[in-house]
Amino acid sequence: MAFDNRRLADLAAHDAFLQRHNGPAGADVDGMLTTLGMENLPSMIEATVPAGIRLGRELDLDPPKSEAEALDYLQRLARQNRVVKSYIGQGYYDTHLPTVIQRNVLENPGWYTAYTPYQPEISQGRLEGLLNFQQMVMDLTGMELANASLLDEATAAAEAMALCKRANKKAKSDTFFVAEDVFPQTLDVVRTRAAWFGFELVVAPAEELADHEVFGALLQYPGDSGQVRDLAPLVTAARERGVMTCVVADIMGLVLLKEPGAIGADMVVGSSQRFGVPMGYGGPHAAFFATTDKLKRSIPGRIIGVSRDSRGNTALRMAMQTREQHIRREKATSNICTAQALLANIAGFYAVYHGAKGLTTIASRIHRLTTILAEGLKAKGISLAHDSWFDTLRLTGVDAGKLHGRAMTHDLNLRYFANGDVGLSLDETTTAHDVDVLFDVLLGEEHGLSVRELDDRVLAEGLTGIPAACRRQSDFLTHPTFRRYQSETEMLRYLKRLENKDLSLAHAMIPLGSCTMKLNATSEMIPITWPEFARIHPFAPRDQVAGYRQMIDELAAFLVEVTGYDHISMQPNSGAQGEYAGLVAIRRYQAAQGEGHRDVCLIPSSAHGTNPASAAMARMKVVVVECDSDGNIDLEDLRAKAEQHRDALSAIMITYPSTHGVFEESVREVCDLVHAHGGQVYIDGANMNAQVGLTRPGDFGGDVSHLNLHKTFCIPHGGGGPGMGPIGVKAHLAPFVSNHVVTPLDGVEASCGAVSAAPFGSASILPISWAYIKMMGARGLREATELAILNANYVAARLERHYPVLYKGRNGTVAHECIIDIRPLKAESGISEEDIAKRLMDYGFHAPTMSFPVPGTLMIEPTESESRYEIDRFCDAMIAIREEIASVQRGDWPADDNPLVNAPHTMADLMDDAWERPYSRELGAFPSEAVKAAKYWPAVNRVDNVFGDRQLICSCPSIDEYRDGTT
Amino acid sequence: MAFDNRRLADLAAHDAFLQRHNGPAGADVDGMLTTLGMENLPSMIEATVPAGIRLGRELDLDPPKSEAEALDYLQRLARQNRVVKSYIGQGYYDTHLPTVIQRNVLENPGWYTAYTPYQPEISQGRLEGLLNFQQMVMDLTGMELANASLLDEATAAAEAMALCKRANKKAKSDTFFVAEDVFPQTLDVVRTRAAWFGFELVVAPAEELADHEVFGALLQYPGDSGQVRDLAPLVTAARERGVMTCVVADIMGLVLLKEPGAIGADMVVGSSQRFGVPMGYGGPHAAFFATTDKLKRSIPGRIIGVSRDSRGNTALRMAMQTREQHIRREKATSNICTAQALLANIAGFYAVYHGAKGLTTIASRIHRLTTILAEGLKAKGISLAHDSWFDTLRLTGVDAGKLHGRAMTHDLNLRYFANGDVGLSLDETTTAHDVDVLFDVLLGEEHGLSVRELDDRVLAEGLTGIPAACRRQSDFLTHPTFRRYQSETEMLRYLKRLENKDLSLAHAMIPLGSCTMKLNATSEMIPITWPEFARIHPFAPRDQVAGYRQMIDELAAFLVEVTGYDHISMQPNSGAQGEYAGLVAIRRYQAAQGEGHRDVCLIPSSAHGTNPASAAMARMKVVVVECDSDGNIDLEDLRAKAEQHRDALSAIMITYPSTHGVFEESVREVCDLVHAHGGQVYIDGANMNAQVGLTRPGDFGGDVSHLNLHKTFCIPHGGGGPGMGPIGVKAHLAPFVSNHVVTPLDGVEASCGAVSAAPFGSASILPISWAYIKMMGARGLREATELAILNANYVAARLERHYPVLYKGRNGTVAHECIIDIRPLKAESGISEEDIAKRLMDYGFHAPTMSFPVPGTLMIEPTESESRYEIDRFCDAMIAIREEIASVQRGDWPADDNPLVNAPHTMADLMDDAWERPYSRELGAFPSEAVKAAKYWPAVNRVDNVFGDRQLICSCPSIDEYRDGTT
Repeated sequence: MAFDNRRLADLAAHDAFLQRHNGPAGADVDGMLTTLGMENLPSMIEATVPAGIRLGRELDLDPPKSEAEALDYLQRLARQNRVVKSYIGQGYYDTHLPTVIQRNVLENPGWYTAYTPYQPEISQGRLEGLLNFQQMVMDLTGMELANASLLDEATAAAEAMALCKRANKKAKSDTFFVAEDVFPQTLDVVRTRAAWFGFELVVAPAEELADHEVFGALLQYPGDSGQVRDLAPLVTAARERGVMTCVVADIMGLVLLKEPGAIGADMVVGSSQRFGVPMGYGGPHAAFFATTDKLKRSIPGRIIGVSRDSRGNTALRMAMQTREQHIRREKATSNICTAQALLANIAGFYAVYHGAKGLTTIASRIHRLTTILAEGLKAKGISLAHDSWFDTLRLTGVDAGKLHGRAMTHDLNLRYFANGDVGLSLDETTTAHDVDVLFDVLLGEEHGLSVRELDDRVLAEGLTGIPAACRRQSDFLTHPTFRRYQSETEMLRYLKRLENKDLSLAHAMIPLGSCTMKLNATSEMIPITWPEFARIHPFAPRDQVAGYRQMIDELAAFLVEVTGYDHISMQPNSGAQGEYAGLVAIRRYQAAQGEGHRDVCLIPSSAHGTNPASAAMARMKVVVVECDSDGNIDLEDLRAKAEQHRDALSAIMITYPSTHGVFEESVREVCDLVHAHGGQVYIDGANMNAQVGLTRPGDFGGDVSHLNLHKTFCIPHGGGGPGMGPIGVKAHLAPFVSNHVVTPLDGVEASCGAVSAAPFGSASILPISWAYIKMMGARGLREATELAILNANYVAARLERHYPVLYKGRNGTVAHECIIDIRPLKAESGISEEDIAKRLMDYGFHAPTMSFPVPGTLMIEPTESESRYEIDRFCDAMIAIREEIASVQRGDWPADDNPLVNAPHTMADLMDDAWERPYSRELGAFPSEAVKAAKYWPAVNRVDNVFGDRQLICSCPSIDEYRDGTT
Repeated sequence: MAFDNRRLADLAAHDAFLQRHNGPAGADVDGMLTTLGMENLPSMIEATVPAGIRLGRELDLDPPKSEAEALDYLQRLARQNRVVKSYIGQGYYDTHLPTVIQRNVLENPGWYTAYTPYQPEISQGRLEGLLNFQQMVMDLTGMELANASLLDEATAAAEAMALCKRANKKAKSDTFFVAEDVFPQTLDVVRTRAAWFGFELVVAPAEELADHEVFGALLQYPGDSGQVRDLAPLVTAARERGVMTCVVADIMGLVLLKEPGAIGADMVVGSSQRFGVPMGYGGPHAAFFATTDKLKRSIPGRIIGVSRDSRGNTALRMAMQTREQHIRREKATSNICTAQALLANIAGFYAVYHGAKGLTTIASRIHRLTTILAEGLKAKGISLAHDSWFDTLRLTGVDAGKLHGRAMTHDLNLRYFANGDVGLSLDETTTAHDVDVLFDVLLGEEHGLSVRELDDRVLAEGLTGIPAACRRQSDFLTHPTFRRYQSETEMLRYLKRLENKDLSLAHAMIPLGSCTMKLNATSEMIPITWPEFARIHPFAPRDQVAGYRQMIDELAAFLVEVTGYDHISMQPNSGAQGEYAGLVAIRRYQAAQGEGHRDVCLIPSSAHGTNPASAAMARMKVVVVECDSDGNIDLEDLRAKAEQHRDALSAIMITYPSTHGVFEESVREVCDLVHAHGGQVYIDGANMNAQVGLTRPGDFGGDVSHLNLHKTFCIPHGGGGPGMGPIGVKAHLAPFVSNHVVTPLDGVEASCGAVSAAPFGSASILPISWAYIKMMGARGLREATELAILNANYVAARLERHYPVLYKGRNGTVAHECIIDIRPLKAESGISEEDIAKRLMDYGFHAPTMSFPVPGTLMIEPTESESRYEIDRFCDAMIAIREEIASVQRGDWPADDNPLVNAPHTMADLMDDAWERPYSRELGAFPSEAVKAAKYWPAVNRVDNVFGDRQLICSCPSIDEYRDGTT
């Protein structure tokens, strides 16, 4: 090692992040190319990506920044946001995220890099966290069942509407009632969804529910203006008329309010944001959805259930996974496949840490301060719109302009209604001093009121804004989990114990095909908890969010260049939402062209199940296009169907590279053909990781694509959410993307409704993708794509002598993932793809994607971030497993007693003195040298899915059943 | 659960942190009191703390702040510090801590809450990290051996001086040579140490070394003014004359400079701060100390060695632990018992992450920019003091005032020498743009220089500031560990793998007596990585550090009130340093009174070994005072010895409550007696956790105490450092505490030298203690102490039927810890305290303190942060172990084959099919229900200490030997 004699510009290493993000480098790359018989990366790409669609130039992006430079730049942007006291409310509240949870969950890769818990044996930690969340929601809502979260309150309300329709078979009406005091953004999203479902909406005062014939009704509690209304008479009357009711409830309010379950509501939905999750300019945060036992098999989203493992021990799992939309496909009425697991876990832990007592103190303080404020204002002659409240007041007959001026002087945001009323909501962070300042703002400084004296009066007179009929009478959070972890030491150990049950990217490769489990770099994650990004209300005035707006604009510009589209809509906060928003944009555009009748959506048989589900939600008729034996779209069949439906053809949805992991040569032809028949082309962005820098969907024929920022652009999966699914569109579609009722967006038709509660979806995680692109630069992004393809081809090359690789492209290469076929092996040996998946756990790996897109297969996507070392370790494990299968085939081990069917092996297996298996303990649990050095232990044995679905218990089991001796 | 109807002031819950910090609450406290037969906490305290010394009032502190309020306040203080570009250098440099290391090590309780790795079986992760650090130091210095860090560069230099004297038996001189171009703060500390060792110092130009008869010499490389001098002739000449040489080296410079080992230096010391560790207004950071194989058994501090475990596998451990000062006691010439493990690990990981290639790029960039700067300045007629440099230039004949003005305009700090010269040092964060700005500052804006053109010239002409003889010729960091983890994914997994090998407070109670392993709350930790605390140079001008100064002043005021002293000196950065500083203050005071001859220090036989070592270093004669059979100071003996030495009596050092865990009733009498004989009273603050809010050392007779902020005041132990040991003194001693040559301190005599390199020691971790005190408030601090005493008494009560409790106070109570006696049991059963310690690992616990203060015992300190649940779990484990010992006694198991002597049990044991032990696998590794639910696995079997000390290999073994299949 001597002086590095490169030029200063090179020594500056602005592109140093590239080597941190990518796994293989130097000699490893050369070695892998040699294995593939490829001379270099360009020749590999030439063999893989069709010449006709290759970009042929470097992306036009600014030179890359180093990690420190990118963080500096983002810090400067962040400082252009102004963190002021927010009293806007309207579904978003400032909160204190307990720092022990912030550091050890939100900022901890052990939590945020995990995947959705489809493999329960290696997911017991976050499954327990989510079960806590469900229990918390059940307790607070008084319902019998809750799911493990939805995207946001507004989409949860829209899902409730859909469930009312699905479940209320007897109702003949296609009309849905929405009380006029739901939040405007909720109404906006429900309206969009209703329009494409073909429902009529009646928006009217809640009292008028009985006047309308409807299949269901949405009520809010407390109302948009803060009113706390006894909903019992309305709900009871509705029930008697066969109308289902859904209550949108405030989770903090429910601590003090009578739970909607007690008055007979069919569903309760809402946001858990204010339980510790930063506002983040709109998200992400977890919505909740609770319902009755009767509806348990129809509840949308994911639900965690209690089952047992092969040793009969309690084990958690995602219940009814078969309901996920890749099974229901076009029959689905919901395309929900994302939850907000990380945020649901945070809200659940917030409840665990505070317990019922702590939450009661917090909610009581909020309510007391609101009552003090109300009484003070009333004493000074201010009129309130309502004589009931939890945390929100609406002031009538005030001089809004004057109040606005004083509010600005004091650096605080109020809510300004169109009619001149002024609203405000208090939250956990509000102090007595803040109320004092509010008096100054609302009354002028000479008000003479004393918070302390008002407190005395409120206490002496027993004043409250909660009507007697609306007060909670029941206990909640009585389960031991909500009682044991109230010291930080106990909480920390609980969090670490759960973390260490789960396998995340911090342990090993997660080679899930289609899921792109790449590095979520620390420097990308750091900004999201800066207060200047975290503590911003989504409806803060524009001059307070200059930094956010610039960051979002810059990210949009990056994505325009990467995709070849003309415009990016940042609103959809999951991939499925992006699909929906994209298809709706197509339909709106066609309607504007007088082609609103076009409603056929062509979808190849290989498509992800979300595609047909989204099409169904956009009221399209799905027509399936067959694939040929190579897995490619059958052009003849496509031509025939396009022709057959040419008058009704709305769109085609394709995935590129295909879900079979191949760059189809015909893609441009496919797009041209559909365009020629009057259709639009939707290109699913799930596999964008194979395109970036090499080709652009906007160039080869796409009109619209969604981008899974949580795949290609490094937002972590969070153990099952958050995600972000912005859509790129060509110019003609740009006016038809989602708008927002509270924050109208530039260049979008006013008539376009919203798909998400917040104008820019989960804005606070956008800095992750921004930083990724900024630190990689054009060359870096291209090289990442090339290495992703190299890694996948290397996996295919190493495995193909042991497992058949199902689909390949023209020159025998795959794209960024490969599918291996287990069906022949299973026929011969009885060993299934599931056995292999579970056996991989013993080797310390997460399974690849199972049985998608082809049943009986495994789809492997290594991504560019995995090193050759790790990929070799994985391939070695797969090959060793193949040898184990061979042993079963040879009869060395019985078909029903071998390391594969018994997998995964747990500590419980090993400590059992009665080991009577035909193989050694060592072979069972320590099948490789790597595992001996660093063993990850599955927490439970193989989980019984049938039992779990049959029993369907979704509440916390008695603490004993966790088998942790913790009573 | 209904409304919480308390007053608003109570609902505000400003004191909520109390319940987070403390373990037991509510019914648990009552239950524990019942076990003790105590009515309530006050009566327990009355029974335990002597009436004569009780404070009798609440501490006078401001009302407590909630976590959010405290963080807000600290944020405001932080903003009063100004983060400007620092070119001051002088041993402190800005640096980029890689974020993956920041988040997953520095901000991760899995790393920072661990204890010193005395128990190697549960410490293999950080031992490997420290071995990396040693290897990195050996490679960069070219020496054969390095230790695992010391406190700072200046104390490392002082230790080197001491080692020169110890090792150079032949030298008759008592004089030590210090080159005049060592940093002033290094000289300051060496001077203090030399004075009390009785050494003469010669400070002269390095060239004059040959002119002086000395036992050793300290040289710096590069020098204080940046000069890079070929030291080979000086070192060679010194060696020939029998003079030992120590080179203080810059670790970043060593990447490009010839390693001092290659020119025959006997020792190389320095700071590893600039390898990723923030400047932190002075610390903490890790100094290194490297030497030759010949001196390996004399090297100060801790050294990590490679040994083997009982299965013959490679296992790391702290080598030569028996050298630690509690064994050497008054024979010690070093009282070092703290390392900077956390910071050494960070520096080591920085090297692992960058590798040789990355470090070379960084060092080359720094040097290139410096060369460009030098050439530009020279071209413009500026004179440089030297014609060689690595990163530092000294400009002569400049107008310092003008430059200062321009520097302030550009928000950057230069170094201003007393003679009007101006210095500057570049670092990793310096960019080409920064150099451009420097030209503007140094030359005025019309300079016309172009960094790019200068770069061209430098490259074309091969210009460098490093003389040919000083250029590194050898490779470094060639071990696979420094090559494998250069992608973030691999690095993250490596860090997590190491973390999960170790037992920390994130797993379980660490009941180490005297070590006070209490909660290190997240909110206390958060500020330390804020840039406004992290990126401040220790010698930044005072107007840039107003926030730091106020925070330090406030913390000092809190500690004055807590201790009853008049003044706090924040300089000592470990407890041992505090002892030394305190004793030196006594001696300086006595000298000023004309009593400089007083040099006898009375120390009870029960004292911690650091006490006599510190006394020896302050040139005192240690006279041991006996203890009676109850473990209390034998008053008769004390009286006799005080009388005997009355003319020479300088001080007594006592610990209160005693190291035996008892509030001695006689403490006031002891203090009075010593005062009456002309002595001063030093009260060791190690057990301050039992005093806070109940009694104050300053009230019952102490003249000086050190405070282990890393025990009582919540600074985490970091796996073996950092620590902070400020001293509290009575007013008469205040002028005699440590001063600082660069930053003179108010109210301290100018003649008082420094004990640490930085004026306020490890200032950046002081916010931890500040936040703890601020969030607890007076009542909280008192209650914490009461609960610490309750927990200890509860442990004693639960265990005393199974193990004899050695010492108790007047009413049968213990203080905050208790000692159980294993000696009788060992005599009967052959099972030792070490067997119990290792067996506790199988139960998931760290052992209590072993054989201190009494051989053959275990000292248990639960602290207030442990819940009754955890304490019961520990006591259950201890009782179960007692039952296991009974089984051995009964002959159920052979004495040489039972779960105790075989402990700890590892995965390797369990997977072994050949289990031939007389007990089950389950009993071996899963002896309790709690362990079955959440097993922590020791990484290796019992480590062979004798083998390790005999072999003493302190470099990284070949990667194969880690047994992790990672080649």
